[in-house]
Amino acid sequence: MQGVARNQWYVIALSSEITSTPIARTVAGEQIVCYRVPGDRVVALRDRCPHRRYPLSLGRLNGEVLTCGYHGFCFQTDGRCIVVPGQERIPAHADVAVYELEEQGLWTWVWIGDSAAGDRRPPATPWLTSPDSWSVVTGMAPIECRTSLLVDNLLDLSHETYLHGGSIGTPEVAATPTMTTIDRERNVIAVSRHMDAVECPEFYARTTGLTSPIDRWQDIEFFAPSFYLLHVRIAPAGVTPERSGEDPQAFHMKILYGLTPSTTGTTYDFWAVCRDFAIGDQEVDKFLDTMQREVVQQDVDALNIVESRIANDPDPFEVVLGIDRGALAARRMIQELAGGLADREGAFWEDPAGVR
Amino acid sequence: MQGVARNQWYVIALSSEITSTPIARTVAGEQIVCYRVPGDRVVALRDRCPHRRYPLSLGRLNGEVLTCGYHGFCFQTDGRCIVVPGQERIPAHADVAVYELEEQGLWTWVWIGDSAAGDRRPPATPWLTSPDSWSVVTGMAPIECRTSLLVDNLLDLSHETYLHGGSIGTPEVAATPTMTTIDRERNVIAVSRHMDAVECPEFYARTTGLTSPIDRWQDIEFFAPSFYLLHVRIAPAGVTPERSGEDPQAFHMKILYGLTPSTTGTTYDFWAVCRDFAIGDQEVDKFLDTMQREVVQQDVDALNIVESRIANDPDPFEVVLGIDRGALAARRMIQELAGGLADREGAFWEDPAGVR
Amino acid sequence: MQGVARNQWYVIALSSEITSTPIARTVAGEQIVCYRVPGDRVVALRDRCPHRRYPLSLGRLNGEVLTCGYHGFCFQTDGRCIVVPGQERIPAHADVAVYELEEQGLWTWVWIGDSAAGDRRPPATPWLTSPDSWSVVTGMAPIECRTSLLVDNLLDLSHETYLHGGSIGTPEVAATPTMTTIDRERNVIAVSRHMDAVECPEFYARTTGLTSPIDRWQDIEFFAPSFYLLHVRIAPAGVTPERSGEDPQAFHMKILYGLTPSTTGTTYDFWAVCRDFAIGDQEVDKFLDTMQREVVQQDVDALNIVESRIANDPDPFEVVLGIDRGALAARRMIQELAGGLADREGAFWEDPAGVR
Repeated sequence: MQGVARNQWYVIALSSEITSTPIARTVAGEQIVCYRVPGDRVVALRDRCPHRRYPLSLGRLNGEVLTCGYHGFCFQTDGRCIVVPGQERIPAHADVAVYELEEQGLWTWVWIGDSAAGDRRPPATPWLTSPDSWSVVTGMAPIECRTSLLVDNLLDLSHETYLHGGSIGTPEVAATPTMTTIDRERNVIAVSRHMDAVECPEFYARTTGLTSPIDRWQDIEFFAPSFYLLHVRIAPAGVTPERSGEDPQAFHMKILYGLTPSTTGTTYDFWAVCRDFAIGDQEVDKFLDTMQREVVQQDVDALNIVESRIANDPDPFEVVLGIDRGALAARRMIQELAGGLADREGAFWEDPAGVR
Repeated sequence: MQGVARNQWYVIALSSEITSTPIARTVAGEQIVCYRVPGDRVVALRDRCPHRRYPLSLGRLNGEVLTCGYHGFCFQTDGRCIVVPGQERIPAHADVAVYELEEQGLWTWVWIGDSAAGDRRPPATPWLTSPDSWSVVTGMAPIECRTSLLVDNLLDLSHETYLHGGSIGTPEVAATPTMTTIDRERNVIAVSRHMDAVECPEFYARTTGLTSPIDRWQDIEFFAPSFYLLHVRIAPAGVTPERSGEDPQAFHMKILYGLTPSTTGTTYDFWAVCRDFAIGDQEVDKFLDTMQREVVQQDVDALNIVESRIANDPDPFEVVLGIDRGALAARRMIQELAGGLADREGAFWEDPAGVR
Repeated sequence: MQGVARNQWYVIALSSEITSTPIARTVAGEQIVCYRVPGDRVVALRDRCPHRRYPLSLGRLNGEVLTCGYHGFCFQTDGRCIVVPGQERIPAHADVAVYELEEQGLWTWVWIGDSAAGDRRPPATPWLTSPDSWSVVTGMAPIECRTSLLVDNLLDLSHETYLHGGSIGTPEVAATPTMTTIDRERNVIAVSRHMDAVECPEFYARTTGLTSPIDRWQDIEFFAPSFYLLHVRIAPAGVTPERSGEDPQAFHMKILYGLTPSTTGTTYDFWAVCRDFAIGDQEVDKFLDTMQREVVQQDVDALNIVESRIANDPDPFEVVLGIDRGALAARRMIQELAGGLADREGAFWEDPAGVR
């Protein structure tokens, strides 16, 4: 798919979504079926029976064998076809492609590329595998937009003030300047915003018990092309971490996003809210889950609208602010990983004439 | 937008639709936000934040300042950007285009063109500003069709007999010949049909108290490209206006339509039914409103179908009758105002080979 | 329409659908209106008023005269225009094209081609005209797929085992080899599957009273391009027809399909289930109607999905089995009747490189 980086890991599913009932996902334009076989192993094949193109995701799993729901072709977990109807001989080319999956706690990643690369691993997500230290709520929302719009959205949190007022947005978010650093070697972009002695929004007040004023730090790391990690630190105003690095009076969250391009105009928005406090507290889980879903839905609604506007209005002009440095660098990094300015739509993002 | 005349006024909204809650309209392919600021002034801006293209119509109005709902850019009524998030300096090119509006009683018009032309005014609509002399019901219906199909519809009222039987259509409408005059200087087309001693349809019987037979006059003036005015005279059969022009025994209506092209395949159908009798009578208002909405919906249904048929059947052939002279002249006039036979679809309308 | 054979008969409607209320059908891309006039004669005209393109199927029938619902053009059953509004003279070219129909009992066929060919008749369907010998349930389902996918589906009944398990599918269907013969002179393809001493599925058990094991024969004849006839024989295991051809201990069904291409990506799936037992038994009618509708809906769901997959994945590769010989021959025959490999999509079906 044009404009999408290959030879990369993308989140394909919440691990809980992958069961003995196959599910269909389209990642980077590739149609994939995922399922879990005995021994707790996750499997992904091309979601297309080579006989009559019926989706294998509509088939039935018996043990390790997936049977097509149309004419009964049977496939092993390595994609090999072992049964076809009405004859003994299995024709050549009846096998289907296999995708390499990596289950990392609550999220499962897929390798999209020319061949699996065993020595590379998905981005580290230790918060999703340590239930004793980190409590997590997680989910996924499909968006009817190109992935770059979600990149823009997440790398410029000033929008919290306007789109998410009442939950996580306060006037200080938009008003506080940010600092951006760009690491071209590791393909990581960092955007930091430290707010001192500010209002404590509902999202944190209800879960930490803190009251205004608080110190609120937002430290974003974006690992191009698809993983976003927001380090949140909430503390009583004036309290700083100790020299040792210990920070016992503060509350910490890791807000993770997996930005997975599906088709040219659609994206999977995987999210996880991880906290190092109220471990195992189901009421806090429920509150954060409800509020985060509301926040994500507000983003989904906004990005669906922007995408439909772009589709109807070819004018590429956009104003660029200092606050956009991170988002612009992220767009450029993804384009480079995808092999250059692949399509006309992409071309303007960094065209100096376009961003007067 | 191809085939649409620029440097023209178009009805953009019922004036009652324009309040302190912004609304979005697309006129001649241009996305526009309208709202009303203190001092009862109507304002229209380009409906696209120059930062990330979010519709300003989803923003919030505080006094005269419209704030974008995504990142908080703020705009004055002259389109000037006065606030951007996180920095003091307002970048160049952060302003948005302003549209000139003209509120004329119950309807508000927008100027679509290269620049506002202060010395030109929208078509005169005194019936919409004189509640003591004229009682009015008004509304708008969006249609999924190119505007030329609505032009055809309104300039050939013989369709009343078939599409609107039971409300305004009687056999005599289709059967009575019309007289058409074309004023190329003023870009006005007139089509007249005077029916003597005919059946009084429900629409007029219930509101005037007259019974059959009546004299029923329909005098259309179409001001290309977008304003349609039907002068209706209903009187007891044989009663004619006095030499002085007074016409005390007759009932008069002005049926107004604003034909506003939205996108290539969609149109706003603004309508108003104005009467010089039963002034202020709310029962008559309600009856006419209900019946006119039914009539408009019948047109909407028919035109939606014709548009979808044209989209699936490229054969442009159409039979032309004498009764079509007004509609054909209107199509041609609009094409000339739009700068010629702009598109292939338009081309056949007057192609002699096409109208065998 | 590309890829569709012309100068052929196609089923256009169940005869019961054609009444004095006109209906619209699109066959081979041609928009057609059908209705029934006094004297029990079925009529089909081009479904497009030549004046303003309004569908005549939305008009009203008075006796033999169809009146357009928009401006009142009137047409005779031979397509001749006899009335236009507001003038005496009927313009040239105001007539509409007539289609030749052939009502054969429960189904009505239309001739799609350059001119009607009176000496040719639709495929013989005596079971639809002999209520004393054959009881019939019949219906139609529209499918959002190209017609070739329905050809594939019906010519390879091994899918019954997987898609229709519980009603007509048993493991033996997929497991039993078939014999295919191809008659290029008559454009008929035969595919036979004779299953001996097998399970009796619900569809037959409930209607014949037989219990497992049974002999179950499926003898398909496909008359390219559009008529499919499945001869079903169900008998106690081991019972064979007598030498005379009499077969008194067996139960017979004729399952008919009319495969009618509508638009490029849509198909009408006409079906009839005819039986030579339980004649006139309304409970059996009801049971077979319900179960057949369920079976057809399973096919519709599957083919809708395959069509949408093809639309999103241009890869034409398909594995070919021995069991596919009939379907491949049918595709090729239809292509030849349609004038060759008309479109790129069609081209791969028989491309040796495509069917590795």
